[in-house]
Amino acid sequence: MKIAILTIGDELCIGQIINTNAAWMAQACTEIGGIVYRHVTIQDGIEELLYELNILSKECDCILMSGGLGPTHDDKTKETLIAYFNDTLILHEQTLQSLKARARLRGLPLNQRNMDQALVPSTCTVLENPRGTAPGMLFHVDDTIYVSLPGVPSEMKGIMQDHVLPYLRKNIEQEDGKIPYYHTILTKGIPESALADLIGAPEDFLQTDESLAFLPSYQGVRLRLGILSSHPDHAKNRLGELQTILHSKVGTYIYGYGNATLLSVTTDILIQKQCTIGVVESCTGGMLGAEFTKQSGSSTYFLGGLQTYSNALKIQLAHVSPKTLEQFGAVSKEVAEEMAIGGRKVLNTSYCLSITGIAGPEGGTEEKPVGTVWIALASEHDIVSKRFNFGGDRSINRERSVMQSIAMLHDALISRK
Amino acid sequence: MKIAILTIGDELCIGQIINTNAAWMAQACTEIGGIVYRHVTIQDGIEELLYELNILSKECDCILMSGGLGPTHDDKTKETLIAYFNDTLILHEQTLQSLKARARLRGLPLNQRNMDQALVPSTCTVLENPRGTAPGMLFHVDDTIYVSLPGVPSEMKGIMQDHVLPYLRKNIEQEDGKIPYYHTILTKGIPESALADLIGAPEDFLQTDESLAFLPSYQGVRLRLGILSSHPDHAKNRLGELQTILHSKVGTYIYGYGNATLLSVTTDILIQKQCTIGVVESCTGGMLGAEFTKQSGSSTYFLGGLQTYSNALKIQLAHVSPKTLEQFGAVSKEVAEEMAIGGRKVLNTSYCLSITGIAGPEGGTEEKPVGTVWIALASEHDIVSKRFNFGGDRSINRERSVMQSIAMLHDALISRK
Repeated sequence: MKIAILTIGDELCIGQIINTNAAWMAQACTEIGGIVYRHVTIQDGIEELLYELNILSKECDCILMSGGLGPTHDDKTKETLIAYFNDTLILHEQTLQSLKARARLRGLPLNQRNMDQALVPSTCTVLENPRGTAPGMLFHVDDTIYVSLPGVPSEMKGIMQDHVLPYLRKNIEQEDGKIPYYHTILTKGIPESALADLIGAPEDFLQTDESLAFLPSYQGVRLRLGILSSHPDHAKNRLGELQTILHSKVGTYIYGYGNATLLSVTTDILIQKQCTIGVVESCTGGMLGAEFTKQSGSSTYFLGGLQTYSNALKIQLAHVSPKTLEQFGAVSKEVAEEMAIGGRKVLNTSYCLSITGIAGPEGGTEEKPVGTVWIALASEHDIVSKRFNFGGDRSINRERSVMQSIAMLHDALISRK
Repeated sequence: MKIAILTIGDELCIGQIINTNAAWMAQACTEIGGIVYRHVTIQDGIEELLYELNILSKECDCILMSGGLGPTHDDKTKETLIAYFNDTLILHEQTLQSLKARARLRGLPLNQRNMDQALVPSTCTVLENPRGTAPGMLFHVDDTIYVSLPGVPSEMKGIMQDHVLPYLRKNIEQEDGKIPYYHTILTKGIPESALADLIGAPEDFLQTDESLAFLPSYQGVRLRLGILSSHPDHAKNRLGELQTILHSKVGTYIYGYGNATLLSVTTDILIQKQCTIGVVESCTGGMLGAEFTKQSGSSTYFLGGLQTYSNALKIQLAHVSPKTLEQFGAVSKEVAEEMAIGGRKVLNTSYCLSITGIAGPEGGTEEKPVGTVWIALASEHDIVSKRFNFGGDRSINRERSVMQSIAMLHDALISRK
C-alpha cells in the first residue's frame, strides 16, 4: 500500500510549528507494513487541497490528511472534501451528543461553531474523536482510501490508533504483494564514512529487494536494513542473517537494535545491575534529568538531581569548594568532578553525572570558547571526566551534552563487573 | 518569490526522525519575504528526486533541497542534479583543501568517500560548509533557483545564513510584486472557538490581500495577521491598525506579540522586576529548569532547582514533611505547596515553582488518574496551587505541566506591584 501523508496548515507551511504529526503518522504506517513514499505540506485553502488530492490520488492507495478541521474560518478541509467528492453535509447525531456532553462536563457553552463540527459528509465513515471536538472522516472510493484527521497531535494519534491503523492493516493484509520489513542496528563512536568503509559495498551482501540505509544522528549512526517480502518468516530470518553479517564487520560499535535508544539501552543496564543515577546540571538546567525520566518506570533508576545553575548553588547544594571555583572557573575539569562527587553523596546514588559548560551564545573566551563543556561521572569506585567542544549553537550544545553524558554512563556500565 | 522546500531521505519518509529542517527553512524564508507554498519530503532515490524537480520547477521560483549529500551509497542528490541539469562533475580545489585541513585538525584519515565530496557539478555555485564535509550547491537556471544543502541541521542552517538567505533576499527585493508581511498576536486562557466568536467575521475588518489565521497550541492561540503589500511602511501601519482592532475585541487575553513566547514574556517581566525563580520538579524531572535556561542570559533570573524525583529527596532536599507525604501522597496540594515553599528557602529565590504529578502511563488511581498534576508557586508573600488533569499521554502531561507552570508565574508577575 503506497501511502502519502498530507499535512495542512499555514502555520506548518511558514514553519511556525514543527511538523511532528507527519513523522508520527509515517512511523505508525511503516510499522504496519505501509510504504510511505511522500509527505506533502500545503497552506490552508480549498484550491491548494483540491490540486493536491488530484495529484496524489493518481499515485497512491491511501492519502492521510491532518489539519484544517477546526472551528474557525481558515479551516477548509471539510468544505474541500465536500467539493472533491461532490458530497453534501449531514448531521451526525452521535457526534452532536458527545459535543453536548463534553461542553456540559467542562461547564462551557456550546456555540454554533462547535455544533457545526457535528456536520459531516454523507458518504464518509465518521471516526470518533473522544479527545476533541472535530471527528475524523474516512472515504474509501475506487480502491483509494482518504482519511482526514484533526491537526491537534493527541487527537490525531488517538483516532489513528483507534480506527485508521486497524483499517489500513486489514487492507494491507488483503493485498497479494510484498510488504516491507525493517530492522535497525544502532552504532556509536564511529563516523558515517568510516562505518561505510568497514561495511564495504552493500551489493556484495544484499540481494534484490534488500536495502541498507545509513541514518546519522547525535546519538550515532543507525543502520537500517530493509527487505520487501511476502513471507514474514522469510523476512525475519533474512534480516537476522544480514544482522550477523553486519555484526561481523562493525560489531564493536553496535550498542543496540530496533526501537532501542542509547537511553533505553543504558537504563536497561542500570536496572539489570541494580544501579541508580543522579545528576548535577549547570548549562543544561535540567535536561539530563528530563531525559532520564522521559521513560515510564524511571523511578527504578533515577532518584533525582540538583540544578546548580548559579555558582552559589554549586557550592551550597553540591558542595563544590569555593576555592576550586575561583581557581579553575565554573567550566573546568575540577569543578565538573567536584559536582559529580558531591552530587553522588547528597543524592545517595550509585552513579552521578555532572555537566558544566558554556552553552552560548554569550560567555565564551579564547581559552574556553562557546561550546566548551565538561562532563564528569562519579561512581562508588572512581571519577571520570571529559572535555567536549560542540560549537556555537546553544540548543545543540545542550542536546549534545545530554547525549554524551548518557554515552559516558553507557561506557562505564558495560565495563562494570 | 514562490518557494518549495524539498527534504530528502528515507528516514524522514518513514518517520524515524522529525523534520525540523523544513520548519527552520520555511521560517527563515518567510522572514525575508518569500512565500513558502509547499513542503515535500521524498525517499532517497534518483527517480523520486527527478520526478519532483520536474513538477516543482513548473510551479515555483525557488526549490530549497536538503539531504542526500552524505558520503554513503544511499546519498543520491548530487548524482541526480548532474542528470537533471545534464552537467558533469569537476574537482572544487577549495573544498578539497578544507576537507584536508579538517581531517588534519581532527587527526582523522581522509578516505576516498570524503574526497569525493570535493567533486561538484560544473555549473553550480559552490556554497562553503565550514561545519561539515559536503558543500552546498546553488543553480540559477531560467529564472528558477535550485539550492541543495546537507541534511545535518547545523550545516544546513550555517549555509542558509551565510549564503542562501542573502542571495534570496537580493532576488526578492528586485521583484516588482507584493510581498507578505506578518504580525502575530499571542493569547492565553481562551479556546479557539470562543476567541473566534469574540473577534467576529474577519471580512468585517479585513481588506483584500489581508488575512487572519488562528494558530492553536499548548501555550494558547496565536492570531497571525498577514498582508500582501509592495510598501513596507504601508504594511507596517496597516498591521498596527489591525492589531488595535483585535486589541479592542480580545485585549484581555493578549499577553504578547511577534516572536515572543509565554516564556520570553514571563522572563522579561522577571528581569524588569528584578525577581529570580527556582524550581522543584518531580514528574518533569528537570524539564521546567531546562525551559527557563533555554534562552541565553537566563542566569539573570534562574538560579537553580531541585529534581526531587524520589520521595526521600523531596524530604531531604526540599524539606517536605514525611507526615504530609504519608497523609496526602506525593501528588497532592499539600506536598506541591511544601515543595515550593521549601524550595524557595533552599534556593533563595523570589519565586519557586513546584510540579508533582502522575505522568503515566503507570501509577494512576481512580481518585488520582494518570495526568493528575499539582503545580504550586511560592513567593515572598504567598503560595498558590492548582490541580490539572492533562490526560493519558506521558510526554504531553510533562510538556503541559511546564507550560502551565510558566502561565501561573506570568499571572503572578503581571499582578505584582
